[in-house]
Amino acid sequence: MAQKPWLNGLGMIIVWIVLHPTMIAAQQPALSLIPIPANLQAGSGSLRVDSSFTFALAGHSEPRLGRAAERFLRQLALQTSIPLSPKPAKNSNATLMIHTGHASREIQEVGEDESYVLEVSATGAKLIAPTPLGTMHGLQTFLQLVNVSPDGFAAPAVTIHDQPRFPWRGLMIDSARHFIPLDVIRRNLDGMEAVKMNVFHWHLSENQGFRIESKKFPKLHGLGSDGLYYTQEEVRDVIAYARDRGIRVVPEFDMPGHSTAWFVGHPELASGKGPYEIERRWGIFDPAIDPTNEKVYKLLDDLIGEMARIFPDHFFHIGGDEVNGKEWDANPKIQAYMKDHGIKNNDALQAYFSGRVQKLVVKHGKIVVGWDEVLVPGVPKDIVIQSWRGQASLALAAKQGFRGILSNGYYLDLGWPAGRHYAVDPMSGDAGNLSPEEKQHILGGESCMWAEYVNAENVDSRIWPRNAAIAERLWSPQEVRDPASMYARLDFISARLEWLGLTHKTYYRRMLQRIAGPSSPEEFAALRTLADLVEPVKDYTREQTAPAQPTSATPMNRVVDAVPLESDAGRHFGELVDQYLASSCHDAALADRLRAQLSRWRDNDAQLQPLAQRSLLVKEVAARSQDLSALGAAGLAALDAIAKGQPALDSWKSEQLAVIEQAKKPKAQLLLIPAPSVQKLVEAASAGGACFAAKL
Amino acid sequence: MAQKPWLNGLGMIIVWIVLHPTMIAAQQPALSLIPIPANLQAGSGSLRVDSSFTFALAGHSEPRLGRAAERFLRQLALQTSIPLSPKPAKNSNATLMIHTGHASREIQEVGEDESYVLEVSATGAKLIAPTPLGTMHGLQTFLQLVNVSPDGFAAPAVTIHDQPRFPWRGLMIDSARHFIPLDVIRRNLDGMEAVKMNVFHWHLSENQGFRIESKKFPKLHGLGSDGLYYTQEEVRDVIAYARDRGIRVVPEFDMPGHSTAWFVGHPELASGKGPYEIERRWGIFDPAIDPTNEKVYKLLDDLIGEMARIFPDHFFHIGGDEVNGKEWDANPKIQAYMKDHGIKNNDALQAYFSGRVQKLVVKHGKIVVGWDEVLVPGVPKDIVIQSWRGQASLALAAKQGFRGILSNGYYLDLGWPAGRHYAVDPMSGDAGNLSPEEKQHILGGESCMWAEYVNAENVDSRIWPRNAAIAERLWSPQEVRDPASMYARLDFISARLEWLGLTHKTYYRRMLQRIAGPSSPEEFAALRTLADLVEPVKDYTREQTAPAQPTSATPMNRVVDAVPLESDAGRHFGELVDQYLASSCHDAALADRLRAQLSRWRDNDAQLQPLAQRSLLVKEVAARSQDLSALGAAGLAALDAIAKGQPALDSWKSEQLAVIEQAKKPKAQLLLIPAPSVQKLVEAASAGGACFAAKL
Repeated sequence: MAQKPWLNGLGMIIVWIVLHPTMIAAQQPALSLIPIPANLQAGSGSLRVDSSFTFALAGHSEPRLGRAAERFLRQLALQTSIPLSPKPAKNSNATLMIHTGHASREIQEVGEDESYVLEVSATGAKLIAPTPLGTMHGLQTFLQLVNVSPDGFAAPAVTIHDQPRFPWRGLMIDSARHFIPLDVIRRNLDGMEAVKMNVFHWHLSENQGFRIESKKFPKLHGLGSDGLYYTQEEVRDVIAYARDRGIRVVPEFDMPGHSTAWFVGHPELASGKGPYEIERRWGIFDPAIDPTNEKVYKLLDDLIGEMARIFPDHFFHIGGDEVNGKEWDANPKIQAYMKDHGIKNNDALQAYFSGRVQKLVVKHGKIVVGWDEVLVPGVPKDIVIQSWRGQASLALAAKQGFRGILSNGYYLDLGWPAGRHYAVDPMSGDAGNLSPEEKQHILGGESCMWAEYVNAENVDSRIWPRNAAIAERLWSPQEVRDPASMYARLDFISARLEWLGLTHKTYYRRMLQRIAGPSSPEEFAALRTLADLVEPVKDYTREQTAPAQPTSATPMNRVVDAVPLESDAGRHFGELVDQYLASSCHDAALADRLRAQLSRWRDNDAQLQPLAQRSLLVKEVAARSQDLSALGAAGLAALDAIAKGQPALDSWKSEQLAVIEQAKKPKAQLLLIPAPSVQKLVEAASAGGACFAAKL
Repeated sequence: MAQKPWLNGLGMIIVWIVLHPTMIAAQQPALSLIPIPANLQAGSGSLRVDSSFTFALAGHSEPRLGRAAERFLRQLALQTSIPLSPKPAKNSNATLMIHTGHASREIQEVGEDESYVLEVSATGAKLIAPTPLGTMHGLQTFLQLVNVSPDGFAAPAVTIHDQPRFPWRGLMIDSARHFIPLDVIRRNLDGMEAVKMNVFHWHLSENQGFRIESKKFPKLHGLGSDGLYYTQEEVRDVIAYARDRGIRVVPEFDMPGHSTAWFVGHPELASGKGPYEIERRWGIFDPAIDPTNEKVYKLLDDLIGEMARIFPDHFFHIGGDEVNGKEWDANPKIQAYMKDHGIKNNDALQAYFSGRVQKLVVKHGKIVVGWDEVLVPGVPKDIVIQSWRGQASLALAAKQGFRGILSNGYYLDLGWPAGRHYAVDPMSGDAGNLSPEEKQHILGGESCMWAEYVNAENVDSRIWPRNAAIAERLWSPQEVRDPASMYARLDFISARLEWLGLTHKTYYRRMLQRIAGPSSPEEFAALRTLADLVEPVKDYTREQTAPAQPTSATPMNRVVDAVPLESDAGRHFGELVDQYLASSCHDAALADRLRAQLSRWRDNDAQLQPLAQRSLLVKEVAARSQDLSALGAAGLAALDAIAKGQPALDSWKSEQLAVIEQAKKPKAQLLLIPAPSVQKLVEAASAGGACFAAKL
């Protein structure tokens, strides 16, 4: 094929200065890219996007690229509300020229070239990528560049050379504990594409459900899912949808534990006597597959074969985590087998099982992925370890030649703030000390959305926007790690993700509306004020603190189910307090802003109480509301004390700290986020020091 | 069929007190029903709705009822977030017993029995209706009754005997000026069901587009729609979807004017020479069908026949409005024909055309509906007049024996507040003076969503929640007319409508986000504060005040496209001012609340200006923002003057009124809603009178 004139043109401008990405972020606050590209050079001027915008595709051609470009243009039209035709232009003078070098692999592979070059000038834009994967990433970057400007919609002039830091950038969704409907899966794939994630890890079986149709063993989903499962046709559609977005789909069938739902239809697989029912509670349970039963391997051979034909990806996840061994201990037949075969303990028994299953997976042409536990002596070197244990575990595996992906630190269900996930680096700790060759074994990471406390209504809000911070960690250079920049860009991408159909922002008012019932605007605002400042309890305390044993049938309609896992309002208040204290309590404008918020909190409870009388779901948070009022009063008193210019009395301090101590306790499974910041104000008011030194 | 025991039970309680509906609304603020039922008697206690909730269907059975009940239960589960099985219970002890008397007509008819009786007690609920139409209405009422209570979700004990005041309660959507996608149509049908509307009038052809596939004349949609049309299969799906919700679908093909798009593919139908292009502008245009051309009637015979087979409804709308006659005047052949046939003028020519078309409609088994213009001497008595002219026109028609429906006063695109639509009654004015027999001819009304300035993104917000006020006007007794009650219930139904997938609330932040571009939380809040207090210019001034000639290709991304047509914040501020003035300016708490709002407005512009520098779309409203700040300052000064206890100087008053005069002018096609209320404050501050008399 003859070289296009515009490629010649580009040849002349492939000279750029490699800027430190954090410098770029600081220099260009208007560039709200997430993840930040590997290399970016700002140009001058900007490219107008109006109804004359066109694009053209050149180089390698395939239907997927046409669909990607059409999707891109629909999205661009939605972002700008400018009517644009989604058909490619015929001529070579299109606003955006897209050139793709060659096809990517028929089955997307780990480490395929995902790079692209995007050059935007005032007169046009060029996107060049070796493969469709890079083309699709570049289109997403272009979309993020387009914003309203003083002259209308435009993309700033910029030259970007981009490629991912890690080849495996995944999101796991647990569709098994709570069934997650297809449209929710699809919109999350759209979200993944927007932040350049490339692996959808689909957790399909659990104690609580076997969620995919098996034509060979229809009792698996037929009796193990309450009718809530994906048909094979639906799964194939999801796989095609994902491939269209440069995303691999890795299925997980968790064995030999986490498998009660299998046994409802197939009790003969289990190590216990049965009969079994679908598990409704959360936790680690006794039922486990019987590793000593040859019928198990016969069924798994067929089942893995069936599933391997549905999922084209080279990788196949067999779980392998959290077997408590109780059914094995209690089964004399299994004990006898272990003795006969010299299997010393349950770990060895699981290793034996894993070895057998791995051989079946290999037989069906796939590579095994498993949680840390599958790494036992003798397993083949090509398996991939997904680590819930952490970087040390990954490093140990890498030293032995095993590839690994990090999930420790990326569990979205634990309710960590985005900044904490963002700080977790797959190459830190022991992994940071690996040799360059060993480091190659660390493929990346996966965020995990475990589904005890999520359903179709709130799951988006548990994934987004925080998942975008993890996506950046896995794509952008290691040096990109300024949380303030990340949070600013996160706000922006969060709003944009809604255009893709994600509901992580819109769900909130609807859930609060259900909680409030008929209410005046003032009452509803009071509920919102409280809800904006609380977060669900963290890590694994949700079940321990529950008012009653939670099950899969528990309605998720409480405030703890409704509020986002990270309180923006709480974080912003904390930043304001820190700014104020850093100003040595000088800054009157900051003090006024603090006062306005604290007064509102103090007065909020009076507005909310009538609603608490009418709604059980509001009543649950009535004590939390009183705590917020008390916090508001304590904060105001602290500001008053600071204004007086004399350290407050110790007795006053003790009283305030007692209030704050109350506020710090979880109530209704909710944490009151501003409590530590109000404590800082109280301590500043009583400590003297900088505040008063400056004032006096 | 043997009478069910629970029917005997109900027979014993069919004794109730007819309460005046407005009394009920006042007594029971927690009952947020819309439309208010014809008769309602409050009971004691309430029926708990928890995971044990079941329903059973008895009496007449048909698949549509099963689907309605399943949909009801899905909706109930969504409202409460309580997992409920959508399968009917087998036993007769279900929480909700539903009894339907007999089938409704195969093709839903005007005036069919839509009544139902709903009795809710602490131990169970019974819904009895003669037809599935009543059953479906009763299910919606039950859904509106269920709210969170002090004990969890519950429906209050109540006995409701309900039926509509008017048999024709419609919503017209113009899918022709801007194409409205199918999913938007479907969710609006869901909204109609929720408020018991029963006619979807589908405006399918216009100068700007012919939006339905014709297999007989494929050039009509093929060349007349830019590819944006509904296939016949899609239309049949919509009709089935509507029938499932008790909604008739009446198609409209507007003739002989409003038909430019027809002529792109069929110039031979036109009165001018052509060639024709799809019209992109808005307004009344010259092209009109040639009434003197026999080929026209040949094509219309076939086309009406084709469409009559697709739309089962008995009624068929032929438009007939706004022909300017210019093409007729300019065509010598037409003029000669008129002379030859004794047709005196264009009105007579249109009457001739209407007569011919009506005969074709009748030939294909349908009854004609048309706008006022079709009512000319000699038309058959069974036609229905849809009146954009008003009640006098309807009354005149009724006296001649014609049936009519009112749309004057229900044009949603004119931007009226809900309260103004709500006050329009089909039986007021001349219609109120009709004899009882004549009154029977007034079938009801239709709200109209004309689509010059709406698209898929904002159309829901132009229909809802205001359309619910019109729905109540057409369903509830004439005495139900307290706007305060209506507004309180409208807030509530508005939140609930979002559960049906309507986007009339969620679209707003997304559109503002596009307008703002990357922005700090403070900047975005400032944009929101301003946007919350403005409304688009009203009535037919939108086009006159446009910065450039608007067309169907004009991006709808400006603030005027984004803000709701009625400002809740503006209305609430006005109510607060009225309360404050009614308290003789005594009420310090009210004064504080006014001060808080006015201060925020005064300071808002400083927050917004940086964004105006970066975004063209914000810049457009920069002057409007300055006006809001000035209003805030004027209002604060008025409160200060009132606090001083002496009438303000005339010079001060003149200054303030000049500021308010500026604020009252439309800018950026936006009205600043609080201006008249701030003027009241200024006038109170300078007039002396009650404010100062009370203070002194």
